[in-house]
Amino acid sequence: MAEPIRHDKTARQLRLLSDALDSGRLGPVRRMVNTLSPAEIGNLLESLPPGKRSVVWGLVDAEDDGEVLVHVGEEVRESLIADMDQDELVAAASDLDIDDLADLVEDLPDTVIDEVLKSMDRENRERLEQVLSYAEDSAGRLMNPDIVTVRADTTIDVVLRYLRLRGELPDHTDHLYVVSKRHQYLGRIALQALLTHEAGTPINQLLDDEQPAIDVNETSAEVARQFSDHDWISAPVVDDSNILLGRITIDDVVDIIREQAEHQVMSAAGLDEDEDLFSPVRRAFRRRMLWLTINLATAFLASSVVNQFQDTIAHLVALAVLMPIVAGMGGNAGTQVLALMVRGLALGQIGGTNIGVLVWKEVRIAIINGIGIGLLLALIVLAWFHDAKLSLVIALALTVNFTSAALAGVFVPVTVKRFGFDPALAGGVILTTVTDVMGFLSFLGLATLILVR
Amino acid sequence: MAEPIRHDKTARQLRLLSDALDSGRLGPVRRMVNTLSPAEIGNLLESLPPGKRSVVWGLVDAEDDGEVLVHVGEEVRESLIADMDQDELVAAASDLDIDDLADLVEDLPDTVIDEVLKSMDRENRERLEQVLSYAEDSAGRLMNPDIVTVRADTTIDVVLRYLRLRGELPDHTDHLYVVSKRHQYLGRIALQALLTHEAGTPINQLLDDEQPAIDVNETSAEVARQFSDHDWISAPVVDDSNILLGRITIDDVVDIIREQAEHQVMSAAGLDEDEDLFSPVRRAFRRRMLWLTINLATAFLASSVVNQFQDTIAHLVALAVLMPIVAGMGGNAGTQVLALMVRGLALGQIGGTNIGVLVWKEVRIAIINGIGIGLLLALIVLAWFHDAKLSLVIALALTVNFTSAALAGVFVPVTVKRFGFDPALAGGVILTTVTDVMGFLSFLGLATLILVR
Repeated sequence: MAEPIRHDKTARQLRLLSDALDSGRLGPVRRMVNTLSPAEIGNLLESLPPGKRSVVWGLVDAEDDGEVLVHVGEEVRESLIADMDQDELVAAASDLDIDDLADLVEDLPDTVIDEVLKSMDRENRERLEQVLSYAEDSAGRLMNPDIVTVRADTTIDVVLRYLRLRGELPDHTDHLYVVSKRHQYLGRIALQALLTHEAGTPINQLLDDEQPAIDVNETSAEVARQFSDHDWISAPVVDDSNILLGRITIDDVVDIIREQAEHQVMSAAGLDEDEDLFSPVRRAFRRRMLWLTINLATAFLASSVVNQFQDTIAHLVALAVLMPIVAGMGGNAGTQVLALMVRGLALGQIGGTNIGVLVWKEVRIAIINGIGIGLLLALIVLAWFHDAKLSLVIALALTVNFTSAALAGVFVPVTVKRFGFDPALAGGVILTTVTDVMGFLSFLGLATLILVR
Repeated sequence: MAEPIRHDKTARQLRLLSDALDSGRLGPVRRMVNTLSPAEIGNLLESLPPGKRSVVWGLVDAEDDGEVLVHVGEEVRESLIADMDQDELVAAASDLDIDDLADLVEDLPDTVIDEVLKSMDRENRERLEQVLSYAEDSAGRLMNPDIVTVRADTTIDVVLRYLRLRGELPDHTDHLYVVSKRHQYLGRIALQALLTHEAGTPINQLLDDEQPAIDVNETSAEVARQFSDHDWISAPVVDDSNILLGRITIDDVVDIIREQAEHQVMSAAGLDEDEDLFSPVRRAFRRRMLWLTINLATAFLASSVVNQFQDTIAHLVALAVLMPIVAGMGGNAGTQVLALMVRGLALGQIGGTNIGVLVWKEVRIAIINGIGIGLLLALIVLAWFHDAKLSLVIALALTVNFTSAALAGVFVPVTVKRFGFDPALAGGVILTTVTDVMGFLSFLGLATLILVR
């Protein structure tokens, strides 16, 4: 089982840093911060309340500013950018690779973007514009146009001479790409192959044309899937005419996978993964208010069901005591099915071909659980209220609600997804509405039939 | 915003495959399956109900069997292993790298393990035993002992000659490691550096000793953090005496990050990330029963609060109609705080130094939301029940419950974690118990004080 608690090391660093900040000696703080990687600095800044965050941000080495901005969530990024003047922003942005700059550019003030574009040479400016021309969650946005290409009709020693002349390769280069005269992608050569074969070996003997190139318009989610299903370190990106445009590297894919995971966890609570832990109260309030209002509407739906049974409840107040149990337990059972389904949908594992089998499996589990938990519940209620009929009613109602929960757990996320919404976000609200309504309806309805009349 | 829907391509494949299976022509199915990578085959098998799963598993190329077993969740793995005879299992296991084999070995029958060990040479057997001697979630288990080392007192051309003689390098080799005579880790040489420097360059000029080696007992969660914070592709693993034992590569780290993410999503619903979408009803039932029983106990806690107010409810049945709203809305508000906290704790962003600021922020949001949503709620209740005092009671109770939810949202996960439990697993149950109890108590209590007496 994976350990979900990510790192106590960061928590320790945070404590040390906080102590140093509190003591007012900024020298040690600066030294401590600048031993960290940009991602670690970003994580640290995210964990600091606004005041301390500004102080520490001012102590970060200017050369790391750009990378740190790339690594923090959008809300925190805005707060950091607000702390910088134009010259600092231009300098920070100018240090970045094209793909990182493309990621940042939308959050920068227009005047800064103009300055950055002016400071770039024509080739890089064109590259940036090209990257920005692709959709936000596409391979085009993820790719780095900085690639090393070689021709197929040469030999290893010629390539080695070229590389020595060229000097350093782009980060995470594990392959050189082989292109045609028209820059069409033909295949790739592993650096490993260059090192383990004799100098005279022709390049086309080493050519690996098995890995398919990624289409520039592919979604970033699909890119992430391909990388993790094939254990790729990097992959070439091509356009419709198979022209090589750039490459995507695993480090950016890891960021996407992390974001997807955060998105799933946060959206189940109606939050955005870019939410700042310390976002200003006014801003946080507005966003949560929306979510709570949606939930309020669904709560009234459930209440209106209870309202229909006022006479029944007046006749036997114990029903008011027990009704939250039936509704709540249905919610718990449904949430389990929902979690399985949301994961399955995210992995593309669920479709028209297996949904029938899934429903049947879940309904059987619901009925068995209904009988098991229902029996337990009936015994407790019998001991508490000494009313055998009430015991029967609650056990029956629970089984009905578990079954509704199973059906809703399977069909709600599938339907939500079919309508183009996010099952993780909308699924939970709709599901608990179903289980609340069905819980109250079955329990109070059965009570009216069996107990009151 | 990250796209949470992972891939419709897999869903499409699944449909095609299901059609082919239904038609009974297994030739096309076999061809289709064997164009996929082991991870893709694993994903496909996970999405098939037991019967079809067995059929497709029988069609997978024997050489992929081992890798597929490594890539599926534990429950599915057991079902696949049950379909294989001893010879197939031995063959599958023997094809694997040491780190993958270590991952699989616990799920294999003892007789198979004996056969596999017998078929290995002494060096590999010792390596496997070494890897297995480390804790399950440690760097030692993740590492692959298959590494290429060079000595510092040599030059590039000597290394190149050695590599050409050696032939192929282990997968994902991006660095060679430099060790002392006693095999202590000194630093690493990028393959890039070997390619871009002149043949006569001494190795020690290229030595990069900046990346710290990973301690073999480090947790896999911490390893994952370091990889993603530093954009590593691979990292060396050493023991207490700095002896180089192996290396960890990014592809295994990506698997860990995915598992952590699944764990968070699934454990919030009391499920295990290894749960099979199609696990046998009896097995699924037993596991879910446990979770539902825990939830039943907490539901009774909330009911016992309502029970104290039977007289009040008998006096005004509208209270029974409205009480689920106050409890449920508190749950929704608290879940939002909990999601923020679980993420923050997982990222190590929360500690004694900032928890006060967080509580104060969340309490302020709760009070503002209490007033906002409370006012809305009061107006609706006034229009519905024409009772100004009832409106006042529900608005006050909601604000009290939002505040309890904020406090519970912050302190429950922190406390749960401090006691060594998983905040994602236990946090939600405890939180909703608090908000249910406080919701019923504040609403019915205030109603008793203001409306009844």
